[in-house]
Amino acid sequence: MRIPDAVRTVVDTAPFAHLTTLNADGGPQITVVWVDIEGDEFVIGHMGERRKTRNVRHDPRVALSMLATTMSPMGLREYVVVYGRARVTEGGAVPLLQKLARRYLGPNVDFPPPQFREQPGFITRITPERFGGVGVWNPPKR
Amino acid sequence: MRIPDAVRTVVDTAPFAHLTTLNADGGPQITVVWVDIEGDEFVIGHMGERRKTRNVRHDPRVALSMLATTMSPMGLREYVVVYGRARVTEGGAVPLLQKLARRYLGPNVDFPPPQFREQPGFITRITPERFGGVGVWNPPKR
Repeated sequence: MRIPDAVRTVVDTAPFAHLTTLNADGGPQITVVWVDIEGDEFVIGHMGERRKTRNVRHDPRVALSMLATTMSPMGLREYVVVYGRARVTEGGAVPLLQKLARRYLGPNVDFPPPQFREQPGFITRITPERFGGVGVWNPPKR
Repeated sequence: MRIPDAVRTVVDTAPFAHLTTLNADGGPQITVVWVDIEGDEFVIGHMGERRKTRNVRHDPRVALSMLATTMSPMGLREYVVVYGRARVTEGGAVPLLQKLARRYLGPNVDFPPPQFREQPGFITRITPERFGGVGVWNPPKR
């Protein structure tokens, strides 16, 4: 599905995103990640295999939650939850992390460190199926 | 298990907490909540039944993730993930929400609104079993 413009705006503010994956026993696992959008997928870069990538290969169902900078009409903080399915692809992690490091850490930051820059790394790609949270991306049910 | 002092300090900073529960089909559900500590439980107040309370009654496994205000030695933002089991008790939601509204929204805020103040509401109580994330509450494995 298309990612709404209002969600793209939230991602542009460099929110720390809480990624839930499912362990082999079905229990939840959470990692805080930097996030970007490519086309209509949410993308997360990492240099090595992680619990989250093993989890995604076992069960692709994930949820990604991030605060917006805006307030709801009731005065509560808005936030986006992305529900979808993830897959892990190899390669491309260095340019993604470099781009995101400048957005999240500062305009002159070099990341990842030189010793990692020759590795392909991995990208976790999330195809959204539904948007939750509080904001225009999740209109109240009538 | 005991809640470490460093985790109590994070909760005192009024972090928005991302609560993952499990839907009936095993998929993840996330809600952003205010959180407090009572004894060695994390507590979340709500006036009515919610998807999260139905989920917890079906499968008590939850994860609760919140950003700290501190940075790791590597220069990355620290965060706490609480893994544990939740139960829902009736009553006590109004004083809990009133206390948290003043911490999260401002020292003079009255919450919940008057029409809700005669209801008992519910408290979701999380008994921690393990702490994850980045910080002294989750020392690196050797």
